[in-house]
Amino acid sequence: MIPRYSRPDMVAIWSPESKFRIWFEIEAHACDAMADLGVIPKENAQAVWTAKDAQFDVARIDEIEAVTKHDVIAFLTHLSEIVGADNARFVHQGMTSSDVLDTCFNIQLTRAADILLADMDALLEALKRRAFEHKMTVRIGRSHGIHAEPTTMGLTFARFYAEMARNRTRLQAARAEIATGALSGAVGTFANIDPAIEEHVCAQLGLSPEPISTQVIPRDRHAAFFATLGVIASSIENVAIEVRHMQRTEVLEAEEFFSKGQKGSSAMPHKRNPVLTENLTGLARLVRMAVVPAMENVALWHERDISHSSVERNIGPDTTVTLDFALSRLTQVVDKLVVYPDQMQANLDKLGGLVHSQRVLLALTQKGVSREDAYALVQRNAMKVWEQGADFMTELKADADVTAVMSVSEIEEKFDLGYHTKNVDTIFARVFGTA
Amino acid sequence: MIPRYSRPDMVAIWSPESKFRIWFEIEAHACDAMADLGVIPKENAQAVWTAKDAQFDVARIDEIEAVTKHDVIAFLTHLSEIVGADNARFVHQGMTSSDVLDTCFNIQLTRAADILLADMDALLEALKRRAFEHKMTVRIGRSHGIHAEPTTMGLTFARFYAEMARNRTRLQAARAEIATGALSGAVGTFANIDPAIEEHVCAQLGLSPEPISTQVIPRDRHAAFFATLGVIASSIENVAIEVRHMQRTEVLEAEEFFSKGQKGSSAMPHKRNPVLTENLTGLARLVRMAVVPAMENVALWHERDISHSSVERNIGPDTTVTLDFALSRLTQVVDKLVVYPDQMQANLDKLGGLVHSQRVLLALTQKGVSREDAYALVQRNAMKVWEQGADFMTELKADADVTAVMSVSEIEEKFDLGYHTKNVDTIFARVFGTA
Amino acid sequence: MIPRYSRPDMVAIWSPESKFRIWFEIEAHACDAMADLGVIPKENAQAVWTAKDAQFDVARIDEIEAVTKHDVIAFLTHLSEIVGADNARFVHQGMTSSDVLDTCFNIQLTRAADILLADMDALLEALKRRAFEHKMTVRIGRSHGIHAEPTTMGLTFARFYAEMARNRTRLQAARAEIATGALSGAVGTFANIDPAIEEHVCAQLGLSPEPISTQVIPRDRHAAFFATLGVIASSIENVAIEVRHMQRTEVLEAEEFFSKGQKGSSAMPHKRNPVLTENLTGLARLVRMAVVPAMENVALWHERDISHSSVERNIGPDTTVTLDFALSRLTQVVDKLVVYPDQMQANLDKLGGLVHSQRVLLALTQKGVSREDAYALVQRNAMKVWEQGADFMTELKADADVTAVMSVSEIEEKFDLGYHTKNVDTIFARVFGTA
Amino acid sequence: MIPRYSRPDMVAIWSPESKFRIWFEIEAHACDAMADLGVIPKENAQAVWTAKDAQFDVARIDEIEAVTKHDVIAFLTHLSEIVGADNARFVHQGMTSSDVLDTCFNIQLTRAADILLADMDALLEALKRRAFEHKMTVRIGRSHGIHAEPTTMGLTFARFYAEMARNRTRLQAARAEIATGALSGAVGTFANIDPAIEEHVCAQLGLSPEPISTQVIPRDRHAAFFATLGVIASSIENVAIEVRHMQRTEVLEAEEFFSKGQKGSSAMPHKRNPVLTENLTGLARLVRMAVVPAMENVALWHERDISHSSVERNIGPDTTVTLDFALSRLTQVVDKLVVYPDQMQANLDKLGGLVHSQRVLLALTQKGVSREDAYALVQRNAMKVWEQGADFMTELKADADVTAVMSVSEIEEKFDLGYHTKNVDTIFARVFGTA
Repeated sequence: MIPRYSRPDMVAIWSPESKFRIWFEIEAHACDAMADLGVIPKENAQAVWTAKDAQFDVARIDEIEAVTKHDVIAFLTHLSEIVGADNARFVHQGMTSSDVLDTCFNIQLTRAADILLADMDALLEALKRRAFEHKMTVRIGRSHGIHAEPTTMGLTFARFYAEMARNRTRLQAARAEIATGALSGAVGTFANIDPAIEEHVCAQLGLSPEPISTQVIPRDRHAAFFATLGVIASSIENVAIEVRHMQRTEVLEAEEFFSKGQKGSSAMPHKRNPVLTENLTGLARLVRMAVVPAMENVALWHERDISHSSVERNIGPDTTVTLDFALSRLTQVVDKLVVYPDQMQANLDKLGGLVHSQRVLLALTQKGVSREDAYALVQRNAMKVWEQGADFMTELKADADVTAVMSVSEIEEKFDLGYHTKNVDTIFARVFGTA
Repeated sequence: MIPRYSRPDMVAIWSPESKFRIWFEIEAHACDAMADLGVIPKENAQAVWTAKDAQFDVARIDEIEAVTKHDVIAFLTHLSEIVGADNARFVHQGMTSSDVLDTCFNIQLTRAADILLADMDALLEALKRRAFEHKMTVRIGRSHGIHAEPTTMGLTFARFYAEMARNRTRLQAARAEIATGALSGAVGTFANIDPAIEEHVCAQLGLSPEPISTQVIPRDRHAAFFATLGVIASSIENVAIEVRHMQRTEVLEAEEFFSKGQKGSSAMPHKRNPVLTENLTGLARLVRMAVVPAMENVALWHERDISHSSVERNIGPDTTVTLDFALSRLTQVVDKLVVYPDQMQANLDKLGGLVHSQRVLLALTQKGVSREDAYALVQRNAMKVWEQGADFMTELKADADVTAVMSVSEIEEKFDLGYHTKNVDTIFARVFGTA
Repeated sequence: MIPRYSRPDMVAIWSPESKFRIWFEIEAHACDAMADLGVIPKENAQAVWTAKDAQFDVARIDEIEAVTKHDVIAFLTHLSEIVGADNARFVHQGMTSSDVLDTCFNIQLTRAADILLADMDALLEALKRRAFEHKMTVRIGRSHGIHAEPTTMGLTFARFYAEMARNRTRLQAARAEIATGALSGAVGTFANIDPAIEEHVCAQLGLSPEPISTQVIPRDRHAAFFATLGVIASSIENVAIEVRHMQRTEVLEAEEFFSKGQKGSSAMPHKRNPVLTENLTGLARLVRMAVVPAMENVALWHERDISHSSVERNIGPDTTVTLDFALSRLTQVVDKLVVYPDQMQANLDKLGGLVHSQRVLLALTQKGVSREDAYALVQRNAMKVWEQGADFMTELKADADVTAVMSVSEIEEKFDLGYHTKNVDTIFARVFGTA
Repeated sequence: MIPRYSRPDMVAIWSPESKFRIWFEIEAHACDAMADLGVIPKENAQAVWTAKDAQFDVARIDEIEAVTKHDVIAFLTHLSEIVGADNARFVHQGMTSSDVLDTCFNIQLTRAADILLADMDALLEALKRRAFEHKMTVRIGRSHGIHAEPTTMGLTFARFYAEMARNRTRLQAARAEIATGALSGAVGTFANIDPAIEEHVCAQLGLSPEPISTQVIPRDRHAAFFATLGVIASSIENVAIEVRHMQRTEVLEAEEFFSKGQKGSSAMPHKRNPVLTENLTGLARLVRMAVVPAMENVALWHERDISHSSVERNIGPDTTVTLDFALSRLTQVVDKLVVYPDQMQANLDKLGGLVHSQRVLLALTQKGVSREDAYALVQRNAMKVWEQGADFMTELKADADVTAVMSVSEIEEKFDLGYHTKNVDTIFARVFGTA
């Protein structure tokens, strides 16, 4: 987690304070359930809740952990200092540290997912707004970086919207994957703890009980979760690369927003670098690098080993914090992207109308010209445009063999951009439910 | 794809014959839709279907491709040889090669997913059968490779079942992700092809129309698909590692099945190596390695570049073929795993009853012994067992300070394995819906 | 390994024929060494060499393996059919299959490395030739895709040369890493085989004896080897991305070579796609994906498990074959790259001389103008260029405040491209040893 | 970077204070070189060194950066506050921020490498000491987790030594890879800065001048560096896995050191978990995950984009800090590993002498018994041992068909462990140069 690529709400989820707060809630709800089962006295269970509004002293807990070398015991000792030893001795009965740690981790991931879902909502809204704004802003479509046929800037935004909407669905599924809790004891047999306790705690904390756990919650859930974050990061890179291409000096169809004061190098007005989207490209790599370790974490030995722990202490916070920052940054980029329709038109015109050559070719064949002859006709005019910078329509109109079969208005009609945008509404209706 | 780790049905999906068959169906259905729209004559569309039962000549197509340097054109030329040039000239109108290639790739992935789903059904069935068979076969649960508390072999199978069932759900979602088709033309604008054609072809081929495509179907879908295969592979590794641990000489709680004739080294009857599960561990790495490239494929330039293609030509077949083989092999391993309940009991007894020390400790405190004193009592008897190989129960019964508060039958009751298995039915009901 | 991305020499290294040939040589040389030690009779050792010119029958060996389920035994059985059982019974004494398999694998990797080194030599030669050819071909240098200051095309080729030269050095080190052999018996103790045999076989086959092996050669060597291939692939991607950028329609400073006949779409002369370098971008991902599995292979259990085997059966051939193809393809791209100096100049001029604004700014301050005033002077002229498409030099000459401190020739001198190329020779001398 | 897995010396390298100190040195040495060239006055260059012993105020620099949004400018402004504006205006002339940033990053990586090399020296020393200590401590060698033939614990340590020694060599090469500096100006042409300045600064700071840079130092160097760290991490995992296996309850041939006070669960003396090596297994994954992003960083656009920066801000510190911690932890584990030779012997004896069955088989054939008969003889006795827990030697001595060809002493000789250790000295001489 790098401070400059972090936002406070997500960072807060991973603070020691948040962690101890969650630990407390797990323990206190478990006490309630034990009291309901008659395992511990109700008054002691209620007394534990007196710590509800207490501020846990992280430094104090660290101090105790330095002695006990055990984080959960250190916390419980500190809790005892707050609620009194008489009550504290009923806490954590029959539970294992992993019951607390794993359930807490999943709560943190779930909360992180909620922030990420909200991030994606904001991003989707921005993409949708810009899509409709530029629904009919024509630009050249490119395959292999080479001009192909016209499309619109709205379609570009719309496809990013559709991709991010899929990612949102995936993230919701991934959130459900890790919204489970386990309080099943040493090796998951519920030997020392009744399954009803797990059910109560989970219900209180918005989790599902893990149907079968060992000492730990199975890590395939986390692998699926981090893999989903990796896919989202890859889509962020996809948008970022498009913006970086659009901003390059020779293309300049769009630029990341620059505030008045910021204006790049004062001496070089052209030197506005797409640093935000370049940064997003790097952040995508950081999120993606967690995917393989999360998968390597699945195969724990027997009922558990602790190899996953150091990995998760890193990728849990780092990946969610980075992705939150990246989604937010991308939303700003999309929201404020400066689009240059004139430059889009200029680029479209750059090839003197050659982007319409295929339509002309087709029209000639439909007029009865053989495929070979039509090719020759188109090609000889196209080459003039390509090599001498001529205008394709002008050349066609001046070619007697062409005008012998196509009228001037028929030729002009082939250069109509409306031909390429006629189904934009249909596509928008598919993506947004409305055009 | 390595032949020795391949099965014919999955390999067949990726054969040139299958590919050309799918290309044909896409083109023929597209002709039907064009005929319905009046774009091409109905009789020509019908005539294209005469190739339905034809065998496409792969060598001939390769021959043509060697000249044209274009696989789709080579196929269309060969198709023309079958249905006649008069009909063939109506084929592929307004389409781009990617319409055929991408839709075909998704059909292949969908069919691959169907095989994998069937594989998983077989694996789930085997896991379930073995889980019920060994529901109450007690074995020691281990954390960190160290004996912890008793569990059952049935629970081990059951947790693998639950994990694989989650994977099945994930795979179904991933299948839905890539069950889309696109026939949207050069840059996805439907400029030269009516959206109705895409809808018809997709409906005929069991696909959904891609809501918005460029020249290609967006690759976040494929990233999510291959990530899911990576999670499944990691779960395969998880089971494989458990079997490898169980089979090691000192543990020997289970062995991969050996046929009579096979019986390892004839001179060394103990030398039965868990080679199948070791192999599965390696295959898991192979499947997993496709995840990152699939994610790197998402950020294509503008409306498409072709960097994804070589990656997919490899990971498409390789990953699905390897995973199919691995799932099938794992099913055999599970199905025929030779389980040794006696050895499980022997291992459980190996520590002379020390696995019950926590219960004794708890019982002493519940009898009013202070936590400190109870620890001391348990520890001094436990150390005798640990250091001198004594029996824990015997020592406890011989310790006057213990018998002063616990009767012999109370001591014996603490060694009851039923304590640890009492919730197995509950867990089975959660996992299987029935115990 | 995908046939279309394969070259025959590298593929041949991985053929069954090559493998069995190497196995034979290992066994025959081992027989010689055993005979020297008096372990087996000299005449039998010599007799084994009668198979030297024999063609091993792969189908026959497969047939035997189908029965024995063991590849090395199948080979030895077939060898026995050639040299006679009387001689064959002296073959492989005290050896373990891994002695043959691992030593063979390293020989194959070493041979693969030799081909790759030759590939790199060809690539380096092409890069060097093009570097000198375009040593002084000025083009705009770009940071963030935005015009920065002038550089030369020769420097671009030169930096790729320097990078590939480093890669060549790395590959030589990696080749040395895996040029070891081991004939140390079941668990590497030389209990059943004298170390002198390993030394002889290795000396004959151009390998170093592995100082300490278990049943297998340690896999950190292979991890380092495949990691090196991953770095090389990343450098290939680096060159590929540069070419793809240069070829895009708006930049067009270079193009991949097109043969006369090939000439893209006949109707669209601009539609020459950089498909070779796009393909190289994908191939780089394929090579890189082997790095992590090769690292996961390092931690084998105890003296060996066989999890690495299936991984290596795949990445051994696939990665070397793909990289060989990629290096060769890149060499062709570099060798035949069509460079457009005029377009480079046009792009450089695109900003009306603004790329020189920093030099003008510096010159003004050196003339005694305050930093603030100098900025203001430069900026007001730069903005005219940027916003109205004016020419920067013309504007400066027309600005009385500028000409008050700088003469016309002084202004013009600031636009001299020689200022930027004055150290090109120095850099070339560093890279190539000569300018 | 996770505090609990960090050590102060490595963390210090990455502190803001260290970074600004390095920036200062680069700038001050550059001033010296400029003064030598007569570009700036000598007295101003000398005056800059007055900041040599100054403490840079990180908070103040952050404050300035909040306004300027540029870290290098913020630092230079702060430097100006220390050395005076009159001197400061000569600092950084003709340089670009990347000259400072990239050279600094490489210095940090070089220093990190020096710590890692020292870490490896300590680890090698511990491995060597333990290797000689247990040179002849016999234990069973295992393939596939199954008993194979005897080896020694010293050989186990020795092979880890050899592997780590290779890693040390690799790391030294990797250190050399990134020990370069660049002060080559905006796009690497030395247009505004003389190459002599780069040479002087690099010489003063222990770096080589980068032969050809763009705006940045080429990232293939860093890819190779992080790949090397990934290989080292994989070797750490290799050792860790061996320890984890040795410590498992059923094997217990060694244990991580437990201090008196620590002694696991007081009630469960067997519950000493190999948590250090499990942790190392996880840390290895964390180091390894940086390899692919470092490779993705190689292909920057044109003369540079800034996508690599966020990746390196993370993996630079995180990977070196984690690896430093891991190497140090592993050294402690090795240094203090509690080895149980008696238990090794007990495990060796576990199979009643069956590990010698191959030697007996071989001896029988050498006595003239046919291979088939020898097999049958060995097998019928081996099966008794395997199935009924008998002792192999006893059974052989009682088998008249065996004793008909082998004397009792000949049989006994086949069970001599010395047979397996006879070449240990030879191997040690290879690994350590001396036995």
